[in-house]
Amino acid sequence: MIGKIFKKYSKKIGLPPGTMVHVGEKKVEKVKISVIDYDKDNFQKRELKSVEEAFPFKETPTITWLNIDGLHEVEVLEKIGKHYDIHPLVMEDILNTQQRPKIEIFDDYIFAVMKVITQDEEGNLNIEQLSLLLGENYVITFQESEGDIFDPVRERIEKSKGRIRKCGPDYLIYAVMDIVIDHYFLILEKVGETVEFLEDNVIENPDESIVQNIQQMKRKLIFMRKSIWPLRELISTLVREETKLIKDSTMPYLRDLYDHTIQVVDSVETFRDIVSGILDVYLSSVSNKMNEVMKVLTIIATIFIPLTFIAGIYGMNFEFMPELKFQWGYPLIWIIMITVFVGMLFYFRRKRWL
Amino acid sequence: MIGKIFKKYSKKIGLPPGTMVHVGEKKVEKVKISVIDYDKDNFQKRELKSVEEAFPFKETPTITWLNIDGLHEVEVLEKIGKHYDIHPLVMEDILNTQQRPKIEIFDDYIFAVMKVITQDEEGNLNIEQLSLLLGENYVITFQESEGDIFDPVRERIEKSKGRIRKCGPDYLIYAVMDIVIDHYFLILEKVGETVEFLEDNVIENPDESIVQNIQQMKRKLIFMRKSIWPLRELISTLVREETKLIKDSTMPYLRDLYDHTIQVVDSVETFRDIVSGILDVYLSSVSNKMNEVMKVLTIIATIFIPLTFIAGIYGMNFEFMPELKFQWGYPLIWIIMITVFVGMLFYFRRKRWL
Amino acid sequence: MIGKIFKKYSKKIGLPPGTMVHVGEKKVEKVKISVIDYDKDNFQKRELKSVEEAFPFKETPTITWLNIDGLHEVEVLEKIGKHYDIHPLVMEDILNTQQRPKIEIFDDYIFAVMKVITQDEEGNLNIEQLSLLLGENYVITFQESEGDIFDPVRERIEKSKGRIRKCGPDYLIYAVMDIVIDHYFLILEKVGETVEFLEDNVIENPDESIVQNIQQMKRKLIFMRKSIWPLRELISTLVREETKLIKDSTMPYLRDLYDHTIQVVDSVETFRDIVSGILDVYLSSVSNKMNEVMKVLTIIATIFIPLTFIAGIYGMNFEFMPELKFQWGYPLIWIIMITVFVGMLFYFRRKRWL
Amino acid sequence: MIGKIFKKYSKKIGLPPGTMVHVGEKKVEKVKISVIDYDKDNFQKRELKSVEEAFPFKETPTITWLNIDGLHEVEVLEKIGKHYDIHPLVMEDILNTQQRPKIEIFDDYIFAVMKVITQDEEGNLNIEQLSLLLGENYVITFQESEGDIFDPVRERIEKSKGRIRKCGPDYLIYAVMDIVIDHYFLILEKVGETVEFLEDNVIENPDESIVQNIQQMKRKLIFMRKSIWPLRELISTLVREETKLIKDSTMPYLRDLYDHTIQVVDSVETFRDIVSGILDVYLSSVSNKMNEVMKVLTIIATIFIPLTFIAGIYGMNFEFMPELKFQWGYPLIWIIMITVFVGMLFYFRRKRWL
Amino acid sequence: MIGKIFKKYSKKIGLPPGTMVHVGEKKVEKVKISVIDYDKDNFQKRELKSVEEAFPFKETPTITWLNIDGLHEVEVLEKIGKHYDIHPLVMEDILNTQQRPKIEIFDDYIFAVMKVITQDEEGNLNIEQLSLLLGENYVITFQESEGDIFDPVRERIEKSKGRIRKCGPDYLIYAVMDIVIDHYFLILEKVGETVEFLEDNVIENPDESIVQNIQQMKRKLIFMRKSIWPLRELISTLVREETKLIKDSTMPYLRDLYDHTIQVVDSVETFRDIVSGILDVYLSSVSNKMNEVMKVLTIIATIFIPLTFIAGIYGMNFEFMPELKFQWGYPLIWIIMITVFVGMLFYFRRKRWL
Repeated sequence: MIGKIFKKYSKKIGLPPGTMVHVGEKKVEKVKISVIDYDKDNFQKRELKSVEEAFPFKETPTITWLNIDGLHEVEVLEKIGKHYDIHPLVMEDILNTQQRPKIEIFDDYIFAVMKVITQDEEGNLNIEQLSLLLGENYVITFQESEGDIFDPVRERIEKSKGRIRKCGPDYLIYAVMDIVIDHYFLILEKVGETVEFLEDNVIENPDESIVQNIQQMKRKLIFMRKSIWPLRELISTLVREETKLIKDSTMPYLRDLYDHTIQVVDSVETFRDIVSGILDVYLSSVSNKMNEVMKVLTIIATIFIPLTFIAGIYGMNFEFMPELKFQWGYPLIWIIMITVFVGMLFYFRRKRWL
Repeated sequence: MIGKIFKKYSKKIGLPPGTMVHVGEKKVEKVKISVIDYDKDNFQKRELKSVEEAFPFKETPTITWLNIDGLHEVEVLEKIGKHYDIHPLVMEDILNTQQRPKIEIFDDYIFAVMKVITQDEEGNLNIEQLSLLLGENYVITFQESEGDIFDPVRERIEKSKGRIRKCGPDYLIYAVMDIVIDHYFLILEKVGETVEFLEDNVIENPDESIVQNIQQMKRKLIFMRKSIWPLRELISTLVREETKLIKDSTMPYLRDLYDHTIQVVDSVETFRDIVSGILDVYLSSVSNKMNEVMKVLTIIATIFIPLTFIAGIYGMNFEFMPELKFQWGYPLIWIIMITVFVGMLFYFRRKRWL
Repeated sequence: MIGKIFKKYSKKIGLPPGTMVHVGEKKVEKVKISVIDYDKDNFQKRELKSVEEAFPFKETPTITWLNIDGLHEVEVLEKIGKHYDIHPLVMEDILNTQQRPKIEIFDDYIFAVMKVITQDEEGNLNIEQLSLLLGENYVITFQESEGDIFDPVRERIEKSKGRIRKCGPDYLIYAVMDIVIDHYFLILEKVGETVEFLEDNVIENPDESIVQNIQQMKRKLIFMRKSIWPLRELISTLVREETKLIKDSTMPYLRDLYDHTIQVVDSVETFRDIVSGILDVYLSSVSNKMNEVMKVLTIIATIFIPLTFIAGIYGMNFEFMPELKFQWGYPLIWIIMITVFVGMLFYFRRKRWL
Repeated sequence: MIGKIFKKYSKKIGLPPGTMVHVGEKKVEKVKISVIDYDKDNFQKRELKSVEEAFPFKETPTITWLNIDGLHEVEVLEKIGKHYDIHPLVMEDILNTQQRPKIEIFDDYIFAVMKVITQDEEGNLNIEQLSLLLGENYVITFQESEGDIFDPVRERIEKSKGRIRKCGPDYLIYAVMDIVIDHYFLILEKVGETVEFLEDNVIENPDESIVQNIQQMKRKLIFMRKSIWPLRELISTLVREETKLIKDSTMPYLRDLYDHTIQVVDSVETFRDIVSGILDVYLSSVSNKMNEVMKVLTIIATIFIPLTFIAGIYGMNFEFMPELKFQWGYPLIWIIMITVFVGMLFYFRRKRWL
Repeated sequence: MIGKIFKKYSKKIGLPPGTMVHVGEKKVEKVKISVIDYDKDNFQKRELKSVEEAFPFKETPTITWLNIDGLHEVEVLEKIGKHYDIHPLVMEDILNTQQRPKIEIFDDYIFAVMKVITQDEEGNLNIEQLSLLLGENYVITFQESEGDIFDPVRERIEKSKGRIRKCGPDYLIYAVMDIVIDHYFLILEKVGETVEFLEDNVIENPDESIVQNIQQMKRKLIFMRKSIWPLRELISTLVREETKLIKDSTMPYLRDLYDHTIQVVDSVETFRDIVSGILDVYLSSVSNKMNEVMKVLTIIATIFIPLTFIAGIYGMNFEFMPELKFQWGYPLIWIIMITVFVGMLFYFRRKRWL
């Protein structure tokens, strides 16, 4: 998983900057292009065969949301870059799926990169890059694969739920980012459940698998933090920077988004602390168990080794061993052995080993 | 406990922002609404059947404290939001009990979220969200459940103790926040007692339960920190920001509050350090014990194993073993064994194991 | 010790702010009030029966140093607060001995809280609160118990040593704070000695008591840090803030004080690092010892267990054991045993266990 | 490797500052000087016999890239320093290969130091210093040894790929720095692979070599961090500072470079966290294994030691041992032994050791 | 070593500030005073019998470097303080050898404190305080003992090497500070060698002495950090503050000094990280060794204990033991034993213990 992140980068070395190379895995067979065009009164939604079909929308005053699923067909992105007049370095960043979340504010458009984190049924994190372009009357989103996490937003536009149809593309981009951050909370819910499970198990039923579980948890939290930490800056830049592309009425929503990000970051840190604590409990429980095992061994061995020695003495075959002839020798030896035995037990009790 | 925090969030995904959804547990059967209305000369206190009964107070010049216990009846909050002209996102935040402590300063009102932490008899922390709205002549408080921690403030208003009746709603909100922070000190008192108990026990009577205790302590401190850390910023924003809603005469009180918050944060950090130290002592005491156990085993085994071997030699049944026939063979063997025994004791003494 | 810090706080919950309640232990039987009044040419020193006797000094142009030992007689402090026109919250802070060191600069006076740390003969830290009020021509100091740490300052005033009689109350308050910080150095001297002792012992004579010693050391350093860290800010505020109460000529002295504080903070951090290092050495030495113990056990056991087995073989009573009849059986068995023995020794030497 | 870094420094002590002394290893036999001179329409590339051949290019309006491989011939550098009018301290810094990455902006030129990190086939890092001088129409690069990492840039100039021929020397220096940072990603790819390998192995096949591997990984990351961390500041200074040497059109490229640097720093930190986690897993797996070994020993020993004792009893040679005469003595002893055996097994099962 | 640092401080408690008391050890028998007076054309160098001989130089326009070795003769320093009109607190600081590195900029002179760190042949650090006073035409340096580290500077002045004779006293003070910082690099070279040695040894030949070595290394780094960290601020203050005492032409040299300081701080941190890593390797190697020892013990014991038991069975003296009479009993028992032996070996192989 980690190795892969950096695997394809090497093919870019030495190319002129702005050269569009797809860095990442090909996650869909064919690039899928869809467009939603709306304003307060109108709505249309289409899947496009070629990206050129989307270009006429640019001239209309309605809000256009162009969504691209799949990044491996470089020429599609080249056309978009040219038509919307996007800086070549931005287009390069869109293709490079190893971007760190970031924002760049240009005069005519805003470019943002985020990470969409989802979790499959086995609990593996799936991190994908989402690039966003916000222009005067359009939003373009680039995803690595066909995802349905934005369907609720599409539905809200279609059914005109809430304020979305009445607001501009800045509100649309907010809505999209909001969904992404909401999904972080979903992950945290799952993480929370696992942590709770680990906490219960570490006390009742600690075994070696727990360390791997903890390590997986930790790794997930590291990756989440890596994806989410830069978001704070990203959104606070959006709030702070003065740009005509963000209307004042959208500001409270962005501030709300900022609060959510802080909360996610906060929870990730809290979980890290808790998970570290669980590891401590586990390690000390392993250590305690070893201690207990050692005690049992020591008690048995220190009781029986001297006794066996005594028995060994009288198992010797010397001709002149007067004790062997004594009539009371055997019972006496038993008395001595029992005395040693009881003495040892007292000793262990005093040492609080029993 | 942790899992629950994030459990109900998933139902919000995809809803338009500003949609009022209660995120959290339903902690009271019925929402309870009570109002206190006062100025220097007048005082009245009522429990309301419906929230509409509270609205006329808004127009009077007296100070109105409207308290809502229970957040699950969304329509009650909707009405308040509409009547007092509160931003939908604020109303959404009030309903979402997973908020991080924060403050938002609007032109007409100030919105703050805090965490009320109380401790039940078994020592479990109970964290509830308290939302505060401060307007020109009103304070509205939203609690998750019916709590009595504000009764001392109510009494001070009723009996006109101190300055509270002579001051405005900004002083009232200060009084409320002060009580919340005072309760943090109560928790810290209890934590302090447990820490003291752990410190004594870790030396005199260390057993495995201590690790769990320490872990619980740590967890509590993590949660307290999470709730209290953002308070610093919250209160310093209140002190710094210029708003007509906070009078200059209230400033020293807010600064005092700020000092208290710093003190709580400080103590939480100190306790974390101390608790970590206790864990270190415990682990090293476990390690020492194991060492001692091993020493006993080693001493017994290394003394008696060679002796048993010697006894074993003369237990062999060879026909031609001249020593067996010697008259002094048996005493000689005893002398050898005692020599080995004493030699071992000297060796262990030199090694400082005895 | 820790538990106590927070023990008395609960009685304050819910009282109106500014209510004067003594939070802390009663450390002296009776409150002791003493006054020193001086200028360049005059000097008088008196113990007062009642606080009212001090009030006439306020009107004189001479510098008055009023010292209160013991905080439990609230009415004494109330009178002072009223006469010197001190803000009720300040008076409340003076009574609350759990204050964090802090400073507050008012128009007519400066209020500062510090911690006086002394060490008794058994090496226990004794932390007391010192509150300071600096007015135009007076300094008031509040101590929890009768202490003599300020006697050198009193003597310097009486005998007119140094510049103290020629300077104003700002220099006096500096002299008082300087003494307090000098005492931190005394504590650090003692800590340094103990650390040195621990360092020597951990190598030559490590036993379990060392962990407790280290833990005590750590705790002391935590408490010192807690008391001293905020002092940095306190003094830098004094230096930075422009107030007519501090004359320019006193500034270099305050800057010097600031340097001392930094130095104390620095040393505390250095000691923490060193003490942590000692714990590491101790733990690794315990681990090494265990290793050594295990080696001895293993060497003895792995040598003699197989030998004992061989002896056991020929101790069996089978009727048909041809070896037993051989004339050279017994010597042969010895040769085999010695071979095994020597082989084992070689094996252990190769493994570097011997 | 570490020792060497500081080895040659001692010869500089006490020399006047600005004295040019080569601090570092001599990595090439002869200093190699090459020059590329180009503008939009012209291109020439030459290897020079003496540095003086490069000087005429300074006067031409074309862009000149002078590259020096090898720093041990001090006089070559002295000539360059004199001809290009470089501050003696800068020339001293170029010769001192222990520089920390840094930038210095002068009126006529910009001086920057970076570290080129490459990895040989055995995975050893090779850290070399690259010094850059950017003037109005020239770029001078100083490398410790003959490297080919800049060949792609040379090719882009020669074949006029991308914008490089159309832009000024500021773009050239950007292109050079970009290559250096791209190589950091290559290292990270390799580190990522090793980390992945370690992660798999630590669970399936943990042995002692893993600790050394982890330690090597950690060391590499420490060195990378040391080389890369100051780059952040370096590039942000380039972006922030206003200098006529950097054109506005180059700014987006430098910002892109800055993002890459952040990403590298970020990845280094992530890898450090992950590698620490692997060490934790390894240590806990060692501890678990020891536990398991101990259990086997304890089970075998505690079962057989008492049984051997029983057998020892009846191996004694007392004349009066009535049991020995019993007809059912032998079977009875077997029954007792089997009972002890089974009882032990039950005990261990109940303790969950089996 | 540590204890001593704070040992003499106690005699200062309670004295008026500005009282000159020597805090530190007396390191030289007699205070040695030497003076170097020079400008571009003139040079003289003298050892003085009394400090008064140096005073005439103050009036000459030439640059005077007055060096005092030994601080215990307070009256010498008093005279200097009076003649050069130095603030009493500065004179007090010069005498107190526990100063933290710091700088104070006055109108007429600059006062700086640094730590000179040298290493004797056994590798012990020797930390001495160097106080510097820079006036309009003089530099005064105060050292604790007679040191020769400044001899190269003296030689450069005498032989007029480099720019030193052409520049003012600000350049002289730079040269002195440069030497001090160069010596930090010398220490780091040695530290680097030891670290390299530890790294090699921890793998090939780890024994207990390594922990002490690591601890000493750590301690040295702690002390170096303590001495060097404040230097960053010191020099950046020098660079930043505008004072007529530092000429613009000296600025690049001071910036260079600043870079060196950063580099030292950086290296100290890097070494700390590496040394921690070595400790981790050592501890895990101890743990692994213990594991190996335990395995050998367990293998031998679990193989031979059951075999010895079997032999013990047939060593019993029951009259009715039919097996003993069987002709093939003895060979059969051997077969059983060999089977157990081989079975055990298989078991251990399967567990990967062999």
